[in-house]
Amino acid sequence: MEVVDQALHMNGGTGDTSYASNSLCQKNGISMTKPITDDAITNLYSTISPKSLVIADLGCSSGPNSLFMISELIKVVDELRKKLGHPSPEYQVLLNDLPENDFNNIFKSLPSFQKKMSNQLGVGVCPIFISGVPGSFYSRLFPSKSLHFVHSSYSLHWLSQVPEQLENNKGNICVACTSPPIVLRAYHAQFQKDFSMFLSCRAEELVVGGRMVLMFLGRRSENPSSKECCYIWELLALALNDLVSKGLIEEETMNSFNIPLYSPSLSEVKSEVLKERSFTIDHLETSEMNWIAYDSELMMNSPDAFFDSGYNVAKCIRAVVEPLLISHFGDAIIEEVFCSYRKILSDCLSKETNNFINVIASVTKKG
Amino acid sequence: MEVVDQALHMNGGTGDTSYASNSLCQKNGISMTKPITDDAITNLYSTISPKSLVIADLGCSSGPNSLFMISELIKVVDELRKKLGHPSPEYQVLLNDLPENDFNNIFKSLPSFQKKMSNQLGVGVCPIFISGVPGSFYSRLFPSKSLHFVHSSYSLHWLSQVPEQLENNKGNICVACTSPPIVLRAYHAQFQKDFSMFLSCRAEELVVGGRMVLMFLGRRSENPSSKECCYIWELLALALNDLVSKGLIEEETMNSFNIPLYSPSLSEVKSEVLKERSFTIDHLETSEMNWIAYDSELMMNSPDAFFDSGYNVAKCIRAVVEPLLISHFGDAIIEEVFCSYRKILSDCLSKETNNFINVIASVTKKG
Repeated sequence: MEVVDQALHMNGGTGDTSYASNSLCQKNGISMTKPITDDAITNLYSTISPKSLVIADLGCSSGPNSLFMISELIKVVDELRKKLGHPSPEYQVLLNDLPENDFNNIFKSLPSFQKKMSNQLGVGVCPIFISGVPGSFYSRLFPSKSLHFVHSSYSLHWLSQVPEQLENNKGNICVACTSPPIVLRAYHAQFQKDFSMFLSCRAEELVVGGRMVLMFLGRRSENPSSKECCYIWELLALALNDLVSKGLIEEETMNSFNIPLYSPSLSEVKSEVLKERSFTIDHLETSEMNWIAYDSELMMNSPDAFFDSGYNVAKCIRAVVEPLLISHFGDAIIEEVFCSYRKILSDCLSKETNNFINVIASVTKKG
Repeated sequence: MEVVDQALHMNGGTGDTSYASNSLCQKNGISMTKPITDDAITNLYSTISPKSLVIADLGCSSGPNSLFMISELIKVVDELRKKLGHPSPEYQVLLNDLPENDFNNIFKSLPSFQKKMSNQLGVGVCPIFISGVPGSFYSRLFPSKSLHFVHSSYSLHWLSQVPEQLENNKGNICVACTSPPIVLRAYHAQFQKDFSMFLSCRAEELVVGGRMVLMFLGRRSENPSSKECCYIWELLALALNDLVSKGLIEEETMNSFNIPLYSPSLSEVKSEVLKERSFTIDHLETSEMNWIAYDSELMMNSPDAFFDSGYNVAKCIRAVVEPLLISHFGDAIIEEVFCSYRKILSDCLSKETNNFINVIASVTKKG
């Protein structure tokens, strides 16, 4: 637990390997959920219309995505309140992530974000109050009945800790097609424990009628070791095993490494929401997104990306898992791991198309 | 304004020159205000007893002082609520500073702070929810009527910007005994504008009956260029002028440097509070504190400090103004400036005792 809290954070800063510069995949995913998010916030504001609207983003990381979604939500509410003839509500935005997240980087970008928002929204719009809330979303983060809207994207697949009893997951780093049943059960049990804890904490914190839109990596199949959710990590395991065979990583070190990540199916998500009993489900669906997140601007600046489809995918995954890898293997091997991973990915992508599966859940706090 | 927001922050991190390691002066000052702060929070909780108690610390910096005061306040409330037979309130703590402040450093220390607090307070005490709020306290930071208690120490002497019309303050870096009247007026006018803005923003944010305890550098004399508030900066100007005479700093560069700091008198503070009209004054007083903050632990670990009284004072001031100096003069001269400053301080302290004057104001939001 201790270890996960300290090592589980996206790469900080704004450099070439930072999450801030390599989170286009995630941004595309956020855009895909926009109709559902718009619907949820519209519904919320139409029924509650609070004078001070409190929005929390859980697992905000340190990149531009944190603020992208927030600005979209505020624009929707501002349109709506004009239509309804209401004065602007005050907006309170709470950005949460683990204490090791690079909050300084987000905070430095806030003055220009706030200037941009006030230009876009024009006169008569109340200030947007933004704060950072460090802590695990698998525990209480906010006072009781203090939130109206919770948003979380690409965070809830991270577990609170690496499950126990993974001794038999040798050669793998997560749920994989060769993982034995005991490993699958351990991962699933950890997901159940964590996700139900998440739901019951948020149930305390949301007002009645409050909404949550949650998006995270998941799967369509009921098989937890299906290729659609496991393959991207199986290929990273291949890269690590390469280094084991070259003698650069000890086999024992490799065998004791597992990522605290679980990609649940729709029925697994639904089952936890129903068991916890505080929320009604408004939407629950999957979407898919190609591993390769094309971005014309990036392509212009970085010709490598244009010719090598493995390049972006490797960089995107690197921004996300590098701190976990460094905390287990040290930093000496990192360049070699990702160089090998990039080759493996390019080879794979030249032969077949692969997609991430997103689970999107929109729920309302019951009365 | 832009420049001040970016350069006005204490030295970050936890290293030898960081504010976190050199804020003992400030801690002593905070301890001195404890009776007044205790009285204010006791009075607040006895009259309002909110279920969720919201405390803001404005200008929290990045050191241990931010959390020291908070823990003292919470202990007082917890004693009191037991006496009154109330269940524990939820505590919400809002730590504010400028966006360039090192929030990451505070956030990393929160898990151990929260563990310590929960051990000290025992069972039955609600969680403490802590967040960081980046922004200038000379603007709105929080939603309307959302705060119960505001605390600020060693921050309100910092102005929102270097005043204009300081062309005639040559050779000085702040208000000094050789500053012409136009400079004194410019500094005083900036203080009036900033402090009244501070009061009216907080008046919006505090609930009726909410309290503020503010401590900052000030003076007893009505003379704004009195030695008690100016001398420490006059000696720093001496060190900088030394470098001018050695040709290491250009005279023009020195002449255009001024610190955005004003040390008001009690009557200047009182006058702004009365003009703004939202607050009643419960206490308004000065206290003094020796420039040399003795700390037995520090003395043991750092024999330099024991033999050279200029050492601590120079380090304490360095942690506070280094970013301002670097943004104006660059970082090449910094070691030399503080080496010279230390010698000047040691020489001065061997001949006379010098004190900082603290202004302490405790006020209540009117109905």
